[in-house]
Amino acid sequence: MIAPAPMVPGAPGTETEPPRSEPEMLAALSRIGEERYHSLHPFHRLLHDGELDHGQVQAWALNRYYYQCSIPRKDLTLMARIADVDLRLEWRSRVIDHEGDMDGSGGLARYLQLCERLGLDLDYVRSCAGLLPGTRFAVDAYIAFVRERSVLEAIASSLTELYAPAIHRERIAGLSRHYAWADDYALAYFKKRINQARRDVDFGRAWVLRNARTRAEQDAVLDAVRFKTDVLWAQLDALHSAYVEPRRIPPGCFVPQPRDQEHAA
Amino acid sequence: MIAPAPMVPGAPGTETEPPRSEPEMLAALSRIGEERYHSLHPFHRLLHDGELDHGQVQAWALNRYYYQCSIPRKDLTLMARIADVDLRLEWRSRVIDHEGDMDGSGGLARYLQLCERLGLDLDYVRSCAGLLPGTRFAVDAYIAFVRERSVLEAIASSLTELYAPAIHRERIAGLSRHYAWADDYALAYFKKRINQARRDVDFGRAWVLRNARTRAEQDAVLDAVRFKTDVLWAQLDALHSAYVEPRRIPPGCFVPQPRDQEHAA
Repeated sequence: MIAPAPMVPGAPGTETEPPRSEPEMLAALSRIGEERYHSLHPFHRLLHDGELDHGQVQAWALNRYYYQCSIPRKDLTLMARIADVDLRLEWRSRVIDHEGDMDGSGGLARYLQLCERLGLDLDYVRSCAGLLPGTRFAVDAYIAFVRERSVLEAIASSLTELYAPAIHRERIAGLSRHYAWADDYALAYFKKRINQARRDVDFGRAWVLRNARTRAEQDAVLDAVRFKTDVLWAQLDALHSAYVEPRRIPPGCFVPQPRDQEHAA
Repeated sequence: MIAPAPMVPGAPGTETEPPRSEPEMLAALSRIGEERYHSLHPFHRLLHDGELDHGQVQAWALNRYYYQCSIPRKDLTLMARIADVDLRLEWRSRVIDHEGDMDGSGGLARYLQLCERLGLDLDYVRSCAGLLPGTRFAVDAYIAFVRERSVLEAIASSLTELYAPAIHRERIAGLSRHYAWADDYALAYFKKRINQARRDVDFGRAWVLRNARTRAEQDAVLDAVRFKTDVLWAQLDALHSAYVEPRRIPPGCFVPQPRDQEHAA
């Protein structure tokens, strides 16, 4: 275990509180999104408003790749802990969405199209050699959470997808408007993902609402979603610090090249 | 496993290179410190030169507490994986140094004296409720590393202590000169730690040099030390981003109070 083990199970002081109703749970979930989802982070504002230079967008795409390629490992980590075959089968489609069927045309391949359009060396992207430590630690924390917490908390941590369709739409519109490279080929991942995320989250939300029965279980669900917003926020904080303000790139991490050099290369 | 498992053991392309000599290993270790140790981070410059306001120093002490209280858990994680009783016994003194003997006067208690002098609520500090996610993820990554990598890499990751005495001396001198609260009581942890770190690292360095025999093992040792410098650097990046520049505190994290309010409270 990474997390210090609590002395006793359950959250303290919640034994006597009644469980939330379903509308109360939905409202609590919405509130977390409104207060903590990374759509509120200034890095996304800059990205979607076309205010980042090419190297900053490259840094975003390169770092986000680690998140993208870790998601199926996160889902497999979860599936390996699920005893219920039906639930495992339901979850399998997420892995296939990212990794593709035998033909290989999954979300990861589509995501690399974005990196290609941005002029990144795909072998360098895949190697994760230039990754910010802040990105790596945040994403690894997500996988560790899914491996160490209850299956309820692990599934609940995926519920930030509730908030994702809006930011995907905003991203597609903003990138298309402001950046010459942002064509259908580059944005294929985000365009396809909108509908996948909607289907995934419909299942996840219903499952979590059905299985979080006590107040303590509901609290654990909300904490799991908060944890996940921290994972997303910390990645943008690390990016913003390294490439926007104060623009201090940690030792060994990706250093954007001036565009003329890059084209000459 | 959090880390993706390599397909084959050992680092590629190193099979034919001869092992480094002991002076070469020591030089390689020194170079990592000169290039990547967190003594180079501007946050430490500001702290030691007295250029942080009270709330910024509180944020530093509060976040560093999570590192401090995780170190004995990191050492216990390592000890739980060591089959050699003599090596375990040697390592035990580190846990005692931090946690104290039965009388409880260990490094953690001394560290809390610093928090007390800074006017922090010690229950709040101990709860880790106001911690930056970037701090938590970096420190947890350190524990995960020690649990998942080889014992050689796990012990090697402690070798950043090679670089620690200089920064401890600089910290004691800088804080004493610039901050009214920085008396012997507040700085007891750092003053005592200088000699402990020296003894610990003498053992760790000798053990690692003796046990890293092949080139691939030596490479793994150097990578482990680099990983650990990332863990330390990422913590200061998160602090600097939240409390210095751009001074954007992530949702739910510690918000310093103006000093007059704090004294009135």
